[in-house]
Amino acid sequence: MFQYIIDEIFYEVKKLDLKGKQAEYIPELAKVSPEKFAVSLFDLSGNTYEAGDTNDKFSLQSIAKVFAFTMAYRIKGKEIFRRVGVEPSGNPFNSLMQLEQENGFPRNPLINAGALAVCDVLIDELKHPERQLLEFIRLIAQNQHITFNNSVYLSEKETGYRNRALINLMKSFGTIHNSTEKVLDLYYKLCSVEMNTGELAKTFSLYANEGNIYGTNKQILTKSQTKRTNAIMQTCGFYDEAGEFTFRVGLPGKSGVGGGIAAVHPGKYAVAVWSPLLNRKGNSVKGMKILELLTTKLGWSIF
Amino acid sequence: MFQYIIDEIFYEVKKLDLKGKQAEYIPELAKVSPEKFAVSLFDLSGNTYEAGDTNDKFSLQSIAKVFAFTMAYRIKGKEIFRRVGVEPSGNPFNSLMQLEQENGFPRNPLINAGALAVCDVLIDELKHPERQLLEFIRLIAQNQHITFNNSVYLSEKETGYRNRALINLMKSFGTIHNSTEKVLDLYYKLCSVEMNTGELAKTFSLYANEGNIYGTNKQILTKSQTKRTNAIMQTCGFYDEAGEFTFRVGLPGKSGVGGGIAAVHPGKYAVAVWSPLLNRKGNSVKGMKILELLTTKLGWSIF
Amino acid sequence: MFQYIIDEIFYEVKKLDLKGKQAEYIPELAKVSPEKFAVSLFDLSGNTYEAGDTNDKFSLQSIAKVFAFTMAYRIKGKEIFRRVGVEPSGNPFNSLMQLEQENGFPRNPLINAGALAVCDVLIDELKHPERQLLEFIRLIAQNQHITFNNSVYLSEKETGYRNRALINLMKSFGTIHNSTEKVLDLYYKLCSVEMNTGELAKTFSLYANEGNIYGTNKQILTKSQTKRTNAIMQTCGFYDEAGEFTFRVGLPGKSGVGGGIAAVHPGKYAVAVWSPLLNRKGNSVKGMKILELLTTKLGWSIF
Amino acid sequence: MFQYIIDEIFYEVKKLDLKGKQAEYIPELAKVSPEKFAVSLFDLSGNTYEAGDTNDKFSLQSIAKVFAFTMAYRIKGKEIFRRVGVEPSGNPFNSLMQLEQENGFPRNPLINAGALAVCDVLIDELKHPERQLLEFIRLIAQNQHITFNNSVYLSEKETGYRNRALINLMKSFGTIHNSTEKVLDLYYKLCSVEMNTGELAKTFSLYANEGNIYGTNKQILTKSQTKRTNAIMQTCGFYDEAGEFTFRVGLPGKSGVGGGIAAVHPGKYAVAVWSPLLNRKGNSVKGMKILELLTTKLGWSIF
Repeated sequence: MFQYIIDEIFYEVKKLDLKGKQAEYIPELAKVSPEKFAVSLFDLSGNTYEAGDTNDKFSLQSIAKVFAFTMAYRIKGKEIFRRVGVEPSGNPFNSLMQLEQENGFPRNPLINAGALAVCDVLIDELKHPERQLLEFIRLIAQNQHITFNNSVYLSEKETGYRNRALINLMKSFGTIHNSTEKVLDLYYKLCSVEMNTGELAKTFSLYANEGNIYGTNKQILTKSQTKRTNAIMQTCGFYDEAGEFTFRVGLPGKSGVGGGIAAVHPGKYAVAVWSPLLNRKGNSVKGMKILELLTTKLGWSIF
Repeated sequence: MFQYIIDEIFYEVKKLDLKGKQAEYIPELAKVSPEKFAVSLFDLSGNTYEAGDTNDKFSLQSIAKVFAFTMAYRIKGKEIFRRVGVEPSGNPFNSLMQLEQENGFPRNPLINAGALAVCDVLIDELKHPERQLLEFIRLIAQNQHITFNNSVYLSEKETGYRNRALINLMKSFGTIHNSTEKVLDLYYKLCSVEMNTGELAKTFSLYANEGNIYGTNKQILTKSQTKRTNAIMQTCGFYDEAGEFTFRVGLPGKSGVGGGIAAVHPGKYAVAVWSPLLNRKGNSVKGMKILELLTTKLGWSIF
Repeated sequence: MFQYIIDEIFYEVKKLDLKGKQAEYIPELAKVSPEKFAVSLFDLSGNTYEAGDTNDKFSLQSIAKVFAFTMAYRIKGKEIFRRVGVEPSGNPFNSLMQLEQENGFPRNPLINAGALAVCDVLIDELKHPERQLLEFIRLIAQNQHITFNNSVYLSEKETGYRNRALINLMKSFGTIHNSTEKVLDLYYKLCSVEMNTGELAKTFSLYANEGNIYGTNKQILTKSQTKRTNAIMQTCGFYDEAGEFTFRVGLPGKSGVGGGIAAVHPGKYAVAVWSPLLNRKGNSVKGMKILELLTTKLGWSIF
Repeated sequence: MFQYIIDEIFYEVKKLDLKGKQAEYIPELAKVSPEKFAVSLFDLSGNTYEAGDTNDKFSLQSIAKVFAFTMAYRIKGKEIFRRVGVEPSGNPFNSLMQLEQENGFPRNPLINAGALAVCDVLIDELKHPERQLLEFIRLIAQNQHITFNNSVYLSEKETGYRNRALINLMKSFGTIHNSTEKVLDLYYKLCSVEMNTGELAKTFSLYANEGNIYGTNKQILTKSQTKRTNAIMQTCGFYDEAGEFTFRVGLPGKSGVGGGIAAVHPGKYAVAVWSPLLNRKGNSVKGMKILELLTTKLGWSIF
């Protein structure tokens, strides 16, 4: 049944000829073909159903923030919420205004400011933050080939003035412990992680599977922590469009400016989509559409 | 099982001696005894399980915004979203700043500005807005005794300067059609609706029951509209604490400064709690706690 | 010499064919001919030099705020600064954002919020605020024919939603004592005062003449109070263009959306100009230009 | 007469025992004795009248922004206003919010953002920006011993996270041309310039003397440019207290967190005061007071 639905909605969205714009502020991302389009669903029986350019890896960008948060949450437990909040920001994803009004305390771990704070925590806690973060992602992906993309990393690092503004503002409020360069470095490494949709769906199955890595007996987050992580994705995972996504799709998830979206139906499946064309809010146009159709066809939504 | 859990968590929260402050800016609400505490759960088999002051009616306040939105959504269909958004506000519940920046278009129907816009829509669409709105609430409550509390209505109307500021700001942007006094009047009537927790839980079962009034064959919202209403409650139902509620409770719901909270587990049950002591964000302290315990004990959450 | 310069700059500006837009949000003001153009200079020897439509009265609008402030300052002395600040607002003239951030305390008496606070003070202090305010303006104008324009008053009162938003916001913070309707009523009466440029220049000579009404022995403000009033006009008199005016003209003054500007050179003269065409910031285009040329030709500026 | 008044007001203010707090965020400045207090007046006959610790040099900090702006204005003429505005900011001196709302265009050259933009212009225009800027300051000071204080420079550079946030935000909007490090470097050099009050008063006499260096035949700014520079100081020279200063003192001037204030009476004199104790807005408490007394005693104000 899944394969049939996946095929059906993939071709339905393909035909729609939806418009969007690629992210241009990261030069490396602008080079990706705008035609790329893929979807993969990983269910809790271990099956993958997919369609499109599922062999192509893409830049996870903000989706990877979920992994950094997961690692920090695992290490620090609820102490992590002394460093980052759980409320939606209600402002474009990189606004400094709110951060200034709230004295440098980031609203949630999935906006840039919050992910920077999470990276700062990881640097505090880990001996080799970069290596260990990558190992952690490989672990939950059950895939030793996952890696950073160095040219994306360099491209972003050089041009990311807004993130530099964010972290310096936080630093001025004392909400960042380590040097701004060190934190930015880890952050850009994190954003440059690449996967294809199949790998991403499988990795996200962690959040559908009560915090357990599928097919192993390793628990990464407790059941309660997983629920909480999903709740944060639900309310904060889509920049200034969390409401729209909750409303149209009804699943917790996270998008990235690379055009990827990953989402989960707790207890059922994880799904990843990719198309580089973004709407004005920075979310993949085809990705949003295909997920909307998926939950409608399946008649499954958490609401 | 439900009755056992309800009793258990009711007494557990009662013992905790949680602190909070009653809403003081509405003189009538300040008169309610701070000791009041009640919880009712209505499941989709038609049973009510409850504990505490379940005979006392309280002022629904912002909870009633859900009913006005439901009525407007039923009448206008998705056209309603030309008048009101679906995104969380990320700001205190009555902030004018965001409304000013967004040219008088309210972020969602559950903040004051949005509920005022919804009332404006109802005045446009209905011959006798006040009477018909009350009839609608009675219909979904299946209870002809539900009514407005006139002294609460008058008390708020006289002192509601912030709402007057909000609606005049919207009027200056052209996002309100009718006279500000007419809209405010309907809005304050709406907020003054009273129920006890049993009545509220039963009324909210609409949102757990795919838009159908329990025990009737009347469908008020389509399945899809119900899902969307729940999605809005999930992301926008708790002022500046939607994330915290999603995170701790994991159910769509709505709170009011009268100390009530109503929430639903789609397909399972609706629950209403009441205790007038509020936290700094304006949500009932005991209400939040009891719902957190409920979903933890039941092991049921949408995440 | 003055007459020669006045004629010269009047025709120079007339020839320039400067573009602008009339205020449209006040229906009555939109009816005034956009071609109207007048300038009058009143020196401290009692001479008036003028050119253009100097017989036509126009709506003073925000210029009249200076008179209300003068009256309140005379009555309350420096106590007035407990109700209103002296800092420029650095935001468009009617922004609610700043007022919200600063808890309803208006930045200065020349923005709308501040003038509303001043009207509130006058209502506190006067038995017949409307009549006494008009008498005060007639006194400093030395002219019993100055009066309110009733149709402008009604036109503004009906459509002034932003001012209603401002005053209700202040009321919610407790920074307005009287009923919002009473204060708005006095405020709109004040704004509707009419003068021609000759009358306005003569009235403003008070601020050039150390607080004394020219040709009388009546002192309205002390020398120090006059200096302070001029200082406020200098930094706050031109909406979001106080810097530009200080920079181009270099005299303390006040503009209104009716297209008038009044300014003073302390110890030398007062000048009034009128042309209804406004720039984007709400200041008269020709008025700004003629004053710039005046101070350049005279070689007199306070800087 | 001047010496008599200077002595009188110096001792009057000394007796008052005014409270204030030293700037602590720049470690080097926190080391200065809080008791330091000096005043110097330089009139256009070439006389200096002074009292107090007039041999001690102090860190000019923001006062030096006036010199960088003067140099850039001299080089670029009115083109400079394509890079920086002339309006007061109406917000604390380092707010990012306004800069974000106005797309990275700084309100005026005397706030941090504006001074950074001015430094960026100087780097564009000069071969050896640091050396040439210092030479320029020495030229207008007529003093080859004026220099940067290296330990202040290093101390600020290391801890200035907010300025780093500001410049990165501007860079993200494209309103800074050169590398952020290069611009910050020149900026911190500029802020570290040291003078004693006598040297500062003499240097500021440029603005009292129609743009001419006293005792030379060198004109640095035209008469009109000088007037405009003074106008900017009047409306923007005192962080969020420009109105208060205009109001109490009535002279164009500029303050710095080192505790210095320089002001001019065009055509008459320049005056510099120094005391490290600051009020909450960041202006020298004794400095404000002594200037207020000076203009009151002299009976000279521009208003």
